[in-house]
Amino acid sequence: TSIPYTIAIVTDGTAVLGLGNIGPLAGMPVVEGKAALIYHLTGVSMVPILLDTTDPDEIVETVKHIAITFSGIQLEDIASPRCFVIQEKLELTLDIPVMHDDQQGTGVVVLAALINACKITGIRLEKAKIGLIGLGAAGMCIGSFLLQYTGNPPLGTARTEATIRRYAERGGIPSSFKEIMETADVVIATSTVAGLIEPNMVRKGQIIFALSNPIPEIEPQLAVAAGAALAADGKTINNLLAYPGIWRGTLDAKAKRINFEMYKAAALAIADCASEGELVPSPLDPAVHLAVTHSVAKAAMETGVAQRELDNDYFENTNIKEPPWS
Amino acid sequence: TSIPYTIAIVTDGTAVLGLGNIGPLAGMPVVEGKAALIYHLTGVSMVPILLDTTDPDEIVETVKHIAITFSGIQLEDIASPRCFVIQEKLELTLDIPVMHDDQQGTGVVVLAALINACKITGIRLEKAKIGLIGLGAAGMCIGSFLLQYTGNPPLGTARTEATIRRYAERGGIPSSFKEIMETADVVIATSTVAGLIEPNMVRKGQIIFALSNPIPEIEPQLAVAAGAALAADGKTINNLLAYPGIWRGTLDAKAKRINFEMYKAAALAIADCASEGELVPSPLDPAVHLAVTHSVAKAAMETGVAQRELDNDYFENTNIKEPPWS
Repeated sequence: TSIPYTIAIVTDGTAVLGLGNIGPLAGMPVVEGKAALIYHLTGVSMVPILLDTTDPDEIVETVKHIAITFSGIQLEDIASPRCFVIQEKLELTLDIPVMHDDQQGTGVVVLAALINACKITGIRLEKAKIGLIGLGAAGMCIGSFLLQYTGNPPLGTARTEATIRRYAERGGIPSSFKEIMETADVVIATSTVAGLIEPNMVRKGQIIFALSNPIPEIEPQLAVAAGAALAADGKTINNLLAYPGIWRGTLDAKAKRINFEMYKAAALAIADCASEGELVPSPLDPAVHLAVTHSVAKAAMETGVAQRELDNDYFENTNIKEPPWS
Repeated sequence: TSIPYTIAIVTDGTAVLGLGNIGPLAGMPVVEGKAALIYHLTGVSMVPILLDTTDPDEIVETVKHIAITFSGIQLEDIASPRCFVIQEKLELTLDIPVMHDDQQGTGVVVLAALINACKITGIRLEKAKIGLIGLGAAGMCIGSFLLQYTGNPPLGTARTEATIRRYAERGGIPSSFKEIMETADVVIATSTVAGLIEPNMVRKGQIIFALSNPIPEIEPQLAVAAGAALAADGKTINNLLAYPGIWRGTLDAKAKRINFEMYKAAALAIADCASEGELVPSPLDPAVHLAVTHSVAKAAMETGVAQRELDNDYFENTNIKEPPWS
C-alpha cells in the first residue's frame, strides 16, 4: 500500500504564515502547496487534513483515529501554545513520528542559517550570547534547538508573562527586549511585530535574524547599516529546505519518531550545502534534499529509532524523487 | 483548492468484500484500488482514511472533524448494522453528501441489472414478487431501493430476528427463506452463505441474483439448469459501474446530498448502457461513466439539491476524465 510514504498534513488554520487565524479552509492553499512540493522533491505523499475544531483534545482524538492511514503526521499552522500540547499528546499516543513544521521545520532552517552566519561573521555559536524575541511556535523551538546544540540556554522574551514562564520551564533564561538588544551577540526575532527593532537599538557586530512575515522586525539592510555584522529576514528561512528531506529520511529509516539528533543532522546538512558566504542553499536544489534525507536517516540509525537498517546501496543509489519501499 | 473534487473513502475494515472483518490496514488495498479507478474514470480524487475505531460515535466525530477537507464522504466496508447509524448521523451532521458504497453503490448496480434482467425475461419488475435473502448493508439498501422504485415492499429474511425487525421498520415485509424460494419471481441473495440455495429449491422461471462473494448462494449455471429464467452472481454486480459517475455527477452539480432520484438515475443510465441481452455494461467503458454522471447531475438539479445550475455546454462538452470546476 501507499502508507509507508504517505503522511498527513494537519491544520486547524489558526496560525497561517503572515495571515494569522484565518481558518482551515483558507489555510488549504498553503497546505496543498507544501504537499505538491514534497512530492516533487522527495516523492513523499502528503495528504491535507483540515480540522473543523481548534480544541486540543478533539484534535488529538481525531488525528489518533485516522493515524493508521499514515506513516507520519505533519502539524501545520497551529497556533501556540495549543500546538505544544497537541504535539506532545500525539507523540505519546502514536507510534509514528509527529513534526510541527512551524516549530521543528523552522527550527532546523534557523539553526542551519545561524551556523553559516557564525561562520561568515567569525562568531562562535557555542559561546555566543543568543537572545530570542518572540516565543511562539517558532521561537520556542529555536530556543530548544539552540539549547541542545550549544549547551547554553538562550535569553528569551515575549509579550506575556505566561509565555516567558513556559520558556523558563523549558530551560530558557527569561529576559527582556532591552537586555537582548543591548547584550546579545545573536538576536532571533519571531515576534510578528513589524518594525519592532529600531536601527538605534542594533548593537555593533550583532547577527540579527528578523523573521516575522510578511514584514520583519527590522529590514536586513537597515540592520546592517546600523552596525549589524549580518542580518536576514523570514524570506531566507524557507521551511522547504527542511521538511521534504526530514520526512524522506525518517520514512526511509522507518523511524518511530524524529529526535533532536535527526533535526540537528538536517540542519548541518542544509548548512553544508550552502555556497561560501551564503546562509542557506536554494531549496530547489535536489542535492540539498538528498543530503538532508541521508543525514536524517543516518542519525535515525545512530540514535536507535530506525526500524530499518540502511546499507551502502541505499546511501549510494537513493532515487530522491522516488521512495524505494512501499 | 482541490476540495471540490476530493472525497474521503473511509473504512474501519469490518466488512471487506469476501474477507469480512479484517481490519482497516488489511482493507487498504481495496480502498486504494477504488481511489485509483475513480480518478482514472472520472477525475475525482479519493483520499483513503483508515479508522482505528469501530465505535459509531467515534467514527462520526472523527469524520465530522475532518469533513471540511472534502466534498463528499464514501463509507466503505463498514459492517451492518453499525453502517446504518453511522451514515444517518453523518448525513444529519454534515452538509456534504455521504454514500456507503456497500449499500447505495451495490443497490444502484443491482437495480440496473434487475431492470435488464426483467427486460430479458419478460418479467414486469413493478408487479414482480421480490424476495431478499440476507439483509446486511447491501440487502437492506436493495430492499429500500426496490420499494421506492416499484412502490411494492419486497419480502425479506435474514439470520437474526433483530435484522428482520429492522427491515420491517423500514417498510419491508418479513418473510422466510422457504417462502421466498417457493413464491418469489425475483430472488436476491446477499447472505454471505456459500451454496445456501440448493438446485431443487429453484422455482421455474425465477430470476436469481446470488451475490455473495467469493462463493455465491448458487452458481448461476446450476440455477439456470434447475429452471431459473436468469441467474447472476456477485461478479456481475461490480460497484465500479456506479460510484465513479455518481460522485462526478454529484460534485459537478454541487449537490448537498445524494437522494434516491439520483441513485435511480444512475441505475437507469447503467441499465441503458448495456447491450441487448446483457445485464450490465462493461465498467471500463467510459461512456457508462459519462452517462451516469450526466443522469445523476440532472436528477440533482431536478430534485432541487444541486447548488450549481448545469447548462447545455456542460452536458455537451463534459470531459469525463477531468472535472471542470475547482
